[in-house]
Amino acid sequence: MVQAVHRAMHVLRELATATPRLGVTELADRIGVAKPTVHALLRTLEAEGMVVQDRETGKYQLGPGLVVLGNAYLDSHELRTRAVTWADLLATQTGAAVWVGVFTDRHVLVVHHAFRPGGSVQVLETGASLPWNTCALGKAIAAFLPAERRKELLAGELLRVTGASIDDPERLATQLDQVRETGYALDDQELTLGDAGIAAPVFDRTGEVVGGLGLVGPVERLLADSARQECAIAVREVARSLSRDLGAPRNAGLRASS
Amino acid sequence: MVQAVHRAMHVLRELATATPRLGVTELADRIGVAKPTVHALLRTLEAEGMVVQDRETGKYQLGPGLVVLGNAYLDSHELRTRAVTWADLLATQTGAAVWVGVFTDRHVLVVHHAFRPGGSVQVLETGASLPWNTCALGKAIAAFLPAERRKELLAGELLRVTGASIDDPERLATQLDQVRETGYALDDQELTLGDAGIAAPVFDRTGEVVGGLGLVGPVERLLADSARQECAIAVREVARSLSRDLGAPRNAGLRASS
Repeated sequence: MVQAVHRAMHVLRELATATPRLGVTELADRIGVAKPTVHALLRTLEAEGMVVQDRETGKYQLGPGLVVLGNAYLDSHELRTRAVTWADLLATQTGAAVWVGVFTDRHVLVVHHAFRPGGSVQVLETGASLPWNTCALGKAIAAFLPAERRKELLAGELLRVTGASIDDPERLATQLDQVRETGYALDDQELTLGDAGIAAPVFDRTGEVVGGLGLVGPVERLLADSARQECAIAVREVARSLSRDLGAPRNAGLRASS
Repeated sequence: MVQAVHRAMHVLRELATATPRLGVTELADRIGVAKPTVHALLRTLEAEGMVVQDRETGKYQLGPGLVVLGNAYLDSHELRTRAVTWADLLATQTGAAVWVGVFTDRHVLVVHHAFRPGGSVQVLETGASLPWNTCALGKAIAAFLPAERRKELLAGELLRVTGASIDDPERLATQLDQVRETGYALDDQELTLGDAGIAAPVFDRTGEVVGGLGLVGPVERLLADSARQECAIAVREVARSLSRDLGAPRNAGLRASS
């Protein structure tokens, strides 16, 4: 570990949390290092465009260089690049919004968002980071992770973001077992009141799960008896096509241990 | 300058360029430091989610943590947050796409993109980084930067991305003078063949230019005699409203020295 780099990342993480503007003293307190050290880190990050200093207050905030790097990640991400066409197809087919996501630690990062066809007001969710246990995408991916990693996830903190979010590890474990059987995951207003999700895992050429793809929309439309199965089949089929596109073997997912 | 942080950022920049996957040896060559040093940097960046190592090839690429930070920047960016509603309004009013941008070094970073109403296929340009001299947004912002900064921009490298891009510093200087007089900037297929741009500067409470907002669309529609003036007036008015929203004094922009 290079301590200075670790600390610089800590500075960025602090600025990415609830308080977007912090002074040198506040940052030194939060990171637990001396002010001159923080100052040197900030000057270096500023020269790289990763933080900017407010002219009036002297406080620091995140810089535009991060968007350039984040965008380069999205552009170079094979799953995301290949998912764009499939996501559009699925959105057209189902009339719902489509999210593509990858696992990061204990969250799902939305790397692509195909808008629901129709053109009513929609907020772009690319870049959103969702607690894994509160969304169909997270459950679809988690179900196919190695058994050990799954245990870690269930043993760790399970956040609740709506009254319907599930924070009971046993109930989640049962759901993950079901996901491995059916090949898709559901969430019923566990992330957003009024919205449901249906998602399926995506595998790469090594046969390991690399992400997921799923529908998000009003619970009345997505989980109504008539629609649920049809949507689930569509999601699963598109996720399978995308996996094949990424070079996944035909039996990917069957290897997952329970 | 903290050398390790500077080098870590250099690693990220290299991975953000044309070759998105690089091994330790390639990175060591490009950055000009020893392999063990690069390896330590990569391990630290990997622990922070800023790079990921490919299981098969052992090469490194950018990590999802960068998107989380980039998104945190966009969410905390006051200009961007306040611009969303104004951009939607302008897109509805004119039927064209609207971009909101800020200056980064010698580029304009698109921090918000309101789609052209109608719902035909459009690629989201948020995160795109455009050479300042090739787009109306860049010229609108540059025209109102301090005279010294403007000189630097004109003296530096002027990229061409289409045959219509302007790389003659004198011609650009004349255009910037005009922008300061009219309050808006134009580009005529200088960024994309077939597309034109009309943009105006946005000022903050200190009266300094902090970004720009503008229309992008087919040259036939945007720059036709009948449309050009109407669009330019709409852009200038919305940019002025956004500036007032950010606390800009009523005479912002008039202070700019020629």
